[in-house]
Amino acid sequence: MGDTFAVIGSTLVYEGALLDLEVRTLRAPDGAVLQREVVHHPGAVAVLLMDGSDAVLIRQHRTAVGGDVLEIPAGLLDRAGEPPEEAAARECVEEVGLRPRRLTRLGGIHTSVGFTDEYIHLFLGEDPVAEDAGQAHGEEAALQVVRIPFDQLARQARDGQLDDAKTIVAVLAVAARRDADTGS
Amino acid sequence: MGDTFAVIGSTLVYEGALLDLEVRTLRAPDGAVLQREVVHHPGAVAVLLMDGSDAVLIRQHRTAVGGDVLEIPAGLLDRAGEPPEEAAARECVEEVGLRPRRLTRLGGIHTSVGFTDEYIHLFLGEDPVAEDAGQAHGEEAALQVVRIPFDQLARQARDGQLDDAKTIVAVLAVAARRDADTGS
Repeated sequence: MGDTFAVIGSTLVYEGALLDLEVRTLRAPDGAVLQREVVHHPGAVAVLLMDGSDAVLIRQHRTAVGGDVLEIPAGLLDRAGEPPEEAAARECVEEVGLRPRRLTRLGGIHTSVGFTDEYIHLFLGEDPVAEDAGQAHGEEAALQVVRIPFDQLARQARDGQLDDAKTIVAVLAVAARRDADTGS
Repeated sequence: MGDTFAVIGSTLVYEGALLDLEVRTLRAPDGAVLQREVVHHPGAVAVLLMDGSDAVLIRQHRTAVGGDVLEIPAGLLDRAGEPPEEAAARECVEEVGLRPRRLTRLGGIHTSVGFTDEYIHLFLGEDPVAEDAGQAHGEEAALQVVRIPFDQLARQARDGQLDDAKTIVAVLAVAARRDADTGS
């Protein structure tokens, strides 16, 4: 028994291109035996990219949610050992053709602690310079770049008009830091 | 071809207690054929529960992330046809023994649009009354109720000291609404 959770069994039921799925058996402190499905994910980065007073977002097809999503540039930590900062800058170039010259960490999020270990490192990107994105394929070939005044975007995030978790967290965190800096 | 994404194949590779996993084949507008892993999830609710000037959170073991997580009360939409508001109030009772008499919708989040359809309905809960939670099992039997002054919690969310996505979104959205209401 004890006062901690013990993993007493594990079965890898799927190994995929992006995700692995494990069924894990736990013994809880009260003796209950539980099964939990755990989706293993490589982790990701996302960047609230500012160009002057505008935020630079994308509208992209996301088959998992059945439609287009307005979101900040983001991507997988898919190259072995790549530091999150480098991945963040790379994704900005690939998705919107801009490389931020300044990146500030905003912390990060566990997207859904009930079933996945996915963690997204969040950044504020500023002072961008244009850089050729090269040839895109699939979803990235079809994405649309959307510039929105940051104040308007922050109101949308506050009022429940956005629904992408990483985007809302980054936008509201930056808005709150700006409010704190201006002493309002 | 056309200008939309077409689903041209689908295989259900796992049907679980909580999650189903589908491997979907898409044809993108540029003709590229893509495979995407999609985790189907029943959806959830989460509540930023205020008791006076304190927020009432929980610290709970989450095996997917390998440890304890500080988070707002939350749970699955696991009863057929249950309205999100009822699920939200029920989870507050089950997890912290308080039933909010007032619930305000804060919108919601797609937790991770790259791979899952999970959507969490977010609420602000206020004016709570005590209500017996009944017998808990597993993770809920071991959870710890944590009261934190809201202003302190909002600073933690802003400064990247929290990492649960639903918690950060709810806290920063409520903090921003309060700032807007006070005209600061």
